[in-house]
Amino acid sequence: MSKAIELAKHLETLHINNMYKEDFYWTWDKTGEELDAVFTVADALRDLRERNISTRVFDSGLGISIFRDNSTRTRFSFASACNLLGLAVQDLDEKKSQIAHGETVRETANMVSFMADVIGIRDDMYIGEGHKYQKTFMDAVKEGYRDGILEQQPTLVNLQCDVDHPTQCMADLLHVIHHFGGVENLKGKKIAMSWAYSPSYGKPLSVPQGVVGLFTRFGMDVVLAHPEGYDIMPDVEDVARKNAAASGGTFSKTHSMAEAFQDADIVYPKSWASFAAMEERTKLYAAGDQAGIDQLEKRLLAENAQHKDWACTEEMMAKTKNGSGLYLHCLPADITGLSCDEGEVDNSVFDRYLVPLYKQASYKPYIIAAMIFLAKVKDPARALMALESRGQLRKAF
Amino acid sequence: MSKAIELAKHLETLHINNMYKEDFYWTWDKTGEELDAVFTVADALRDLRERNISTRVFDSGLGISIFRDNSTRTRFSFASACNLLGLAVQDLDEKKSQIAHGETVRETANMVSFMADVIGIRDDMYIGEGHKYQKTFMDAVKEGYRDGILEQQPTLVNLQCDVDHPTQCMADLLHVIHHFGGVENLKGKKIAMSWAYSPSYGKPLSVPQGVVGLFTRFGMDVVLAHPEGYDIMPDVEDVARKNAAASGGTFSKTHSMAEAFQDADIVYPKSWASFAAMEERTKLYAAGDQAGIDQLEKRLLAENAQHKDWACTEEMMAKTKNGSGLYLHCLPADITGLSCDEGEVDNSVFDRYLVPLYKQASYKPYIIAAMIFLAKVKDPARALMALESRGQLRKAF
Amino acid sequence: MSKAIELAKHLETLHINNMYKEDFYWTWDKTGEELDAVFTVADALRDLRERNISTRVFDSGLGISIFRDNSTRTRFSFASACNLLGLAVQDLDEKKSQIAHGETVRETANMVSFMADVIGIRDDMYIGEGHKYQKTFMDAVKEGYRDGILEQQPTLVNLQCDVDHPTQCMADLLHVIHHFGGVENLKGKKIAMSWAYSPSYGKPLSVPQGVVGLFTRFGMDVVLAHPEGYDIMPDVEDVARKNAAASGGTFSKTHSMAEAFQDADIVYPKSWASFAAMEERTKLYAAGDQAGIDQLEKRLLAENAQHKDWACTEEMMAKTKNGSGLYLHCLPADITGLSCDEGEVDNSVFDRYLVPLYKQASYKPYIIAAMIFLAKVKDPARALMALESRGQLRKAF
Repeated sequence: MSKAIELAKHLETLHINNMYKEDFYWTWDKTGEELDAVFTVADALRDLRERNISTRVFDSGLGISIFRDNSTRTRFSFASACNLLGLAVQDLDEKKSQIAHGETVRETANMVSFMADVIGIRDDMYIGEGHKYQKTFMDAVKEGYRDGILEQQPTLVNLQCDVDHPTQCMADLLHVIHHFGGVENLKGKKIAMSWAYSPSYGKPLSVPQGVVGLFTRFGMDVVLAHPEGYDIMPDVEDVARKNAAASGGTFSKTHSMAEAFQDADIVYPKSWASFAAMEERTKLYAAGDQAGIDQLEKRLLAENAQHKDWACTEEMMAKTKNGSGLYLHCLPADITGLSCDEGEVDNSVFDRYLVPLYKQASYKPYIIAAMIFLAKVKDPARALMALESRGQLRKAF
Repeated sequence: MSKAIELAKHLETLHINNMYKEDFYWTWDKTGEELDAVFTVADALRDLRERNISTRVFDSGLGISIFRDNSTRTRFSFASACNLLGLAVQDLDEKKSQIAHGETVRETANMVSFMADVIGIRDDMYIGEGHKYQKTFMDAVKEGYRDGILEQQPTLVNLQCDVDHPTQCMADLLHVIHHFGGVENLKGKKIAMSWAYSPSYGKPLSVPQGVVGLFTRFGMDVVLAHPEGYDIMPDVEDVARKNAAASGGTFSKTHSMAEAFQDADIVYPKSWASFAAMEERTKLYAAGDQAGIDQLEKRLLAENAQHKDWACTEEMMAKTKNGSGLYLHCLPADITGLSCDEGEVDNSVFDRYLVPLYKQASYKPYIIAAMIFLAKVKDPARALMALESRGQLRKAF
Repeated sequence: MSKAIELAKHLETLHINNMYKEDFYWTWDKTGEELDAVFTVADALRDLRERNISTRVFDSGLGISIFRDNSTRTRFSFASACNLLGLAVQDLDEKKSQIAHGETVRETANMVSFMADVIGIRDDMYIGEGHKYQKTFMDAVKEGYRDGILEQQPTLVNLQCDVDHPTQCMADLLHVIHHFGGVENLKGKKIAMSWAYSPSYGKPLSVPQGVVGLFTRFGMDVVLAHPEGYDIMPDVEDVARKNAAASGGTFSKTHSMAEAFQDADIVYPKSWASFAAMEERTKLYAAGDQAGIDQLEKRLLAENAQHKDWACTEEMMAKTKNGSGLYLHCLPADITGLSCDEGEVDNSVFDRYLVPLYKQASYKPYIIAAMIFLAKVKDPARALMALESRGQLRKAF
């Protein structure tokens, strides 16, 4: 029995009826079994592809991508996922700096979705805006479907918003699951989601938020570390606390990177802006106050510069479990002495983890494909089995 | 018998031999039966897709899109149509402001068409130039095919030129046909194609021209309304007059919006520039006289501002048949109090017609696909039947 | 027996085991039989397509294109080739002026290649950099495949580097082969690869280098003509000399265009920059010396202007074999009196050769497709036969 079939059999045991035709906004909207289903389908699709078996579900159809911020990695991951399932990608190129208004979004959403099976949106620029945009867009297409304007109901894959980055964090987690030999081995493992210094300003909060919102569901000891003032959204901290209580893990916070790294099985050091500062920026932006934004940026960079000691150095890595904790990063990293003078991580650390880092990234196309698969296919377990038995070659010769 | 098969049987009765391998420039180049064929195939393709039956005609092949003006709606409609039939889209990104010269066009046309089945061109910026560009391009690929350079003869779908906007106007008309329960019910219906005030300058004439050139063929009473000086191309008015005479309808002109709206079954209020002004602009552009263009724009905006009373208000809509005439727009509209201070239409009117407006737009991908289908498939009626009996699922699971 | 089958049978006789999973950098990396295989597969794919037989090898998969310089022709050729085989194209849009560093390239290469079957790269801007970039990129993905990051090993099609332009020159040669009725008829034919004046500055050397590196392998008399100071890379001249010796042809140089054209069967007059100047530019660029680059450009343009007599005039063409030598150009050409005041070729000459010139270009998509086919398909002869017997229609109706 192939791995794909084994996974399909496991999928059959999961209660995932609520995924069909549903959007994927945040991991904490989904049940544990639903997350399990995403990992299961991702692994199954990867197994099929590795054995040159076609995973095409669609004979034709479009995946619409909307990147309201520059992106290479996510763009290629989304394109790969769509291609894997048989969808062609059509990119909607909006001015990234524009906070679109409700009515315009509603119209655009319908105009681009006449043959769209899936919509992938990245909008992480402004706190309080990214999720709102995705919600407005998807409400509009749902209405369009209900009113007979659209032939099919497009579903959302959140490719990063101001709150969560589910495709990234689930790819991170699938990597961790494989690294530790199974999801059951995560219980009690310690992960340090730590702030790290970067010379640039205003990196999104969606990765640290996504990580604490997701990893707390697996009985892990999740530590969020950052200098004072670099808090993430309080709502997401609440999510993490509740998750930890329910899963038998812990969620704690510290202002010491060393404390977080101590005996950690996994470390995820990266830069982000503070929630409060990002809220301030959104307000200035909404008011069109560019001078204010410039001043804020200056202040944040000055503040940032006070914390250059928050770096993933060899010394810091030595504190991790047996000195060999698993280093994670969503890439690209700010690498000290390579891409910048002082950054998030020492070159020697980064270089030692290059292969695992690239593997971590390699799960993203499959996570996205799995999210699409589960939203578009009514009986995904049967569909995986049918793909196996159909046995169409991806490469014919 | 499915709707698609019924439509295929109707298609069999039409004389449409001249459509195979032919370009689609203007609706008035086509016979009534040929237009009927486009509507019929559009409805059949939509029916097949709604029943999850694949409409792929092409296993591989390219649709080339050339947008010499910005476009989201038409871009997505063309991409959707190509995808529906199995073609991949490749976009030729030319500087939009450039009036290309014959030799260059001839070379480019061949260089991008080696595997092109269809070419979609939008070029509506300069009166006297848009159609010329399309013609030069298509003459070149025809020559290329004849000379053995190209394996297949690409055909044109005019995605908007300076004269006509056939994919828009045929989508508009198909919407109207469905709204009134059949093309036979259009006889005697009154449509007001009316100018309306917009704060912007120089909107293309192709929509009003396309509408009067097309709707006059169905025995309707077509009224063209605009302030003095906002005339459309005289040649197209001639077309409309001849059409009306032949179809048993009427074509009339008025300088009163109220008169046009009085008892109208359908109203289509939108802004456009005057033909004379656009001719002037083309000359200034050809002479490279930017100062002259700026001055012209200033004058036109001032003229425009004199006609702010040309707006589709609730009062104006009350004049239409039973106060409930069908409101059409090609979108995006300039909506008073929403997208601008004073515009083409009241927010309350626009909002009431939102669902029909989006439906109107939803026909465009199918109209484009039908035009491609009829130009590329030798026996389209048999092909529709074959698609039905082939029964390949668009979404496999 | 179809032409495709005849060609497949010929392919069976060739020793080409080293092409599978291999990159295509330079023609002189490949054996004579391997080049023969590319021509053979290109002709076979064209024959299949002309007979409406699908040449799809891939059910899904991506071709990644990277154009570090503007390109319309090559972009469409690559897109056509990928589409012909069933791959979707995803473009990586890098800033063209950036000489990327090793580590960044390594990371990007993996991040965009998770589902990439083929990578097409054009990087011809800086002498000493183009090939290096391609090599770094491909080494990274090979490593990624070996390390289990990528499911499949992507292979390279060099779409132009600073050294060779294999897809162009092999398309040129296939055109020549068909023109003279077979590769066996090339022996003893004289080709003049000649510099010609263009008002622009710094055209790549890859075409003249590619031509003398390739055409010398077929027993031809290859003459490289240019004004003093416009030398190509010495390494490539060495390649040409060795090739000529091995194939029984000749490779000679002259500073007289007239001498080169005398009795030539084929002429290929086009502008290029001198190798020494391009090396100087690369150094200035690396040092960030924009003022130096501007000064260099000024000097080169002044030097250029001294050689306006190097033009492919009617007088010059009269010197060729029977006054009717075959005129080649990679397009676009600088045409005297059409695209510029004084350029590479007289309008009357260019116009007379328009059909052959477009035919020359029409081979490029097939050459690229053949390179992909031979790198991805294990038994290409059997695969061609299978395509024929599968008999799937490219256009179903």
